[in-house]
Amino acid sequence: MARVMNFNAGPAALPLAALERAQRELVDLEGTGMSVIEHSHRGKAYDAVHKQALSLVRELLAVPDSHEILLLQGGASQQFAWIPMNLLGEGKSADYVITGSWSKKAFSEAKNVGQARAAATTEKDGKFPRIPAQSELELDSKAAYVHITSNNTIAGTQWHEFPDTGSVPLVADMSSDIMWKPIDVSKFGIIYAGAQKNLGPRGIAVVIVRKDLIEGGRKDIPKIFQYRTHADKQSLYHTPPTFSVYLLRNVLDVVKQGGGLAAMEKHNRQKAELLYKAIDGRPDFYRSPVDKASRSMMNVVFNLPTPELEAEFVAEAQKKGMVGLKGHRSVGGIRASIYNAAQLSWIDALVEFMNDFKKGS
Amino acid sequence: MARVMNFNAGPAALPLAALERAQRELVDLEGTGMSVIEHSHRGKAYDAVHKQALSLVRELLAVPDSHEILLLQGGASQQFAWIPMNLLGEGKSADYVITGSWSKKAFSEAKNVGQARAAATTEKDGKFPRIPAQSELELDSKAAYVHITSNNTIAGTQWHEFPDTGSVPLVADMSSDIMWKPIDVSKFGIIYAGAQKNLGPRGIAVVIVRKDLIEGGRKDIPKIFQYRTHADKQSLYHTPPTFSVYLLRNVLDVVKQGGGLAAMEKHNRQKAELLYKAIDGRPDFYRSPVDKASRSMMNVVFNLPTPELEAEFVAEAQKKGMVGLKGHRSVGGIRASIYNAAQLSWIDALVEFMNDFKKGS
Repeated sequence: MARVMNFNAGPAALPLAALERAQRELVDLEGTGMSVIEHSHRGKAYDAVHKQALSLVRELLAVPDSHEILLLQGGASQQFAWIPMNLLGEGKSADYVITGSWSKKAFSEAKNVGQARAAATTEKDGKFPRIPAQSELELDSKAAYVHITSNNTIAGTQWHEFPDTGSVPLVADMSSDIMWKPIDVSKFGIIYAGAQKNLGPRGIAVVIVRKDLIEGGRKDIPKIFQYRTHADKQSLYHTPPTFSVYLLRNVLDVVKQGGGLAAMEKHNRQKAELLYKAIDGRPDFYRSPVDKASRSMMNVVFNLPTPELEAEFVAEAQKKGMVGLKGHRSVGGIRASIYNAAQLSWIDALVEFMNDFKKGS
Repeated sequence: MARVMNFNAGPAALPLAALERAQRELVDLEGTGMSVIEHSHRGKAYDAVHKQALSLVRELLAVPDSHEILLLQGGASQQFAWIPMNLLGEGKSADYVITGSWSKKAFSEAKNVGQARAAATTEKDGKFPRIPAQSELELDSKAAYVHITSNNTIAGTQWHEFPDTGSVPLVADMSSDIMWKPIDVSKFGIIYAGAQKNLGPRGIAVVIVRKDLIEGGRKDIPKIFQYRTHADKQSLYHTPPTFSVYLLRNVLDVVKQGGGLAAMEKHNRQKAELLYKAIDGRPDFYRSPVDKASRSMMNVVFNLPTPELEAEFVAEAQKKGMVGLKGHRSVGGIRASIYNAAQLSWIDALVEFMNDFKKGS
């Protein structure tokens, strides 16, 4: 079968070139006579892959020397626990800005570890239609950190201007929009992201931590959960998920060849604008549940007049090779996830289908 | 280049058929038009893979209904922390049997979490030449559990008869010998294994836990580290490392097609006997540092008269397509790791080389 147009929310579409490279090399990495999966993580062949993955993250995001890049296991969900374990000292509290299901989960796990409070929430009738304004944030100037979710896959919202947290470290879960455009990493205490959207495969998290936060982190927690353990060993303290690191390297190499994050931003804005224009152009039929200023460039969510029409839309789209358009089970509707690897031609096809579907109904 | 004879200690050789299946399907899983890596973990295609992986573990190891099978991230090193976090209640202590570097690491991490004591150690002059006898174990009848490392990759030793711990749950790190032969799972409280030796790729751990230990586990730790969280959701609480699960499935399918664990035991014993015979047949040149009764069927370690000869041995073997024979950096010498996927023909080639190398020296 031909490759489909994959609008999955994550795990999601990957650049075909990154996958094809992996396919070519899967039983023999660069003439070594074995798969990258079979190589020792202490050997030269894997070491080159590991270092290249780290340096591509540093180069593409322009990560300053003040920050360490870690490749960790367990996804963003484990970081929900690692962050308070490392950063919440005795008597300290952390601020969480609640903008959707994932920030709620991060907040809940922080409360299992120590003291945490909600600095703001945009929940309204069980939904999260927007990102809060700076003026809405009730920040504790003594907080250990402020936590945000930069893009909300289920609600379809995204922070377009990051909050000012003064001297309190800003911690951001960027699982669903890291590398969608260039950002100023120096403004963050921690950036973390499960790789399975913009970066590569499931099974690895990229965690960028300011060095003073590593050094000042708690030492009375298990060694495996201390950031310093992994920083001290270049993320080789224990066997890394070698194939995931390899595929991360392949994906980032494609991003670099394509012009880096500036080119990526242009590509992503173009895709999102086409889709939002298609929605806004037919307000009698398509409706965005999200405040305009908070719209996500990664997850475009919208509704049709009835759930029945939405189900028909998803089924008809699938027949045309567009998959993964069903909204998250908790909110329904339609969701087109258009991460870095989603191609412009897919958006053109989707917009055309949206126009046709409306005419036929 | 032709595939090499891979004696790596882990990550290690995988069955070629499992890799070739992954290669064929890498950009299109079973006509779905996308890679397994791009499939949603909530979709039908991945769900079938996930369930098949779990049922193959259950079938091959004959895991009884009393035990849950979990697929977790972070490898055995994270389980060093998870086990005491879950099982060590207030005022409880755990017993650790120390037979090498890995059990020392597990013991050390347990002491970061709570109370733990060494029930025995076979350390002698910095090495671990044997497994202790039952009579040497100073077991605490009130311990929360007794922890052993079933096979010691660095020392080259293996438990051939598991200890009797009475009513205290026996917990075993089987990372380097799980599925080398059939075992009676009902005798264990927890069996855990990083997959990268006998099971598949790095990036996933198989953890088999008795259900009463899950139910009685601590609830005052982060939710993500509680076994019940993952047991309640069939290891789909958060996005699983989908490609690792897929490759685990491929490897276990090859094991099943090859006759299961009874056939695997015969195959593994034959390989190990050939190698130990080659060592014992030339006691003036090759020397095993391990007590005969404790010899590992997975990692055959031996010495030559001098470190210089050992270095030459490794270099000459590499020229003949045999890689990964250098002993662990902490002990030196030669190590041939001959996990399930190591082929009999490789052992024949290695034995022939051992005979030739001696003649030439």
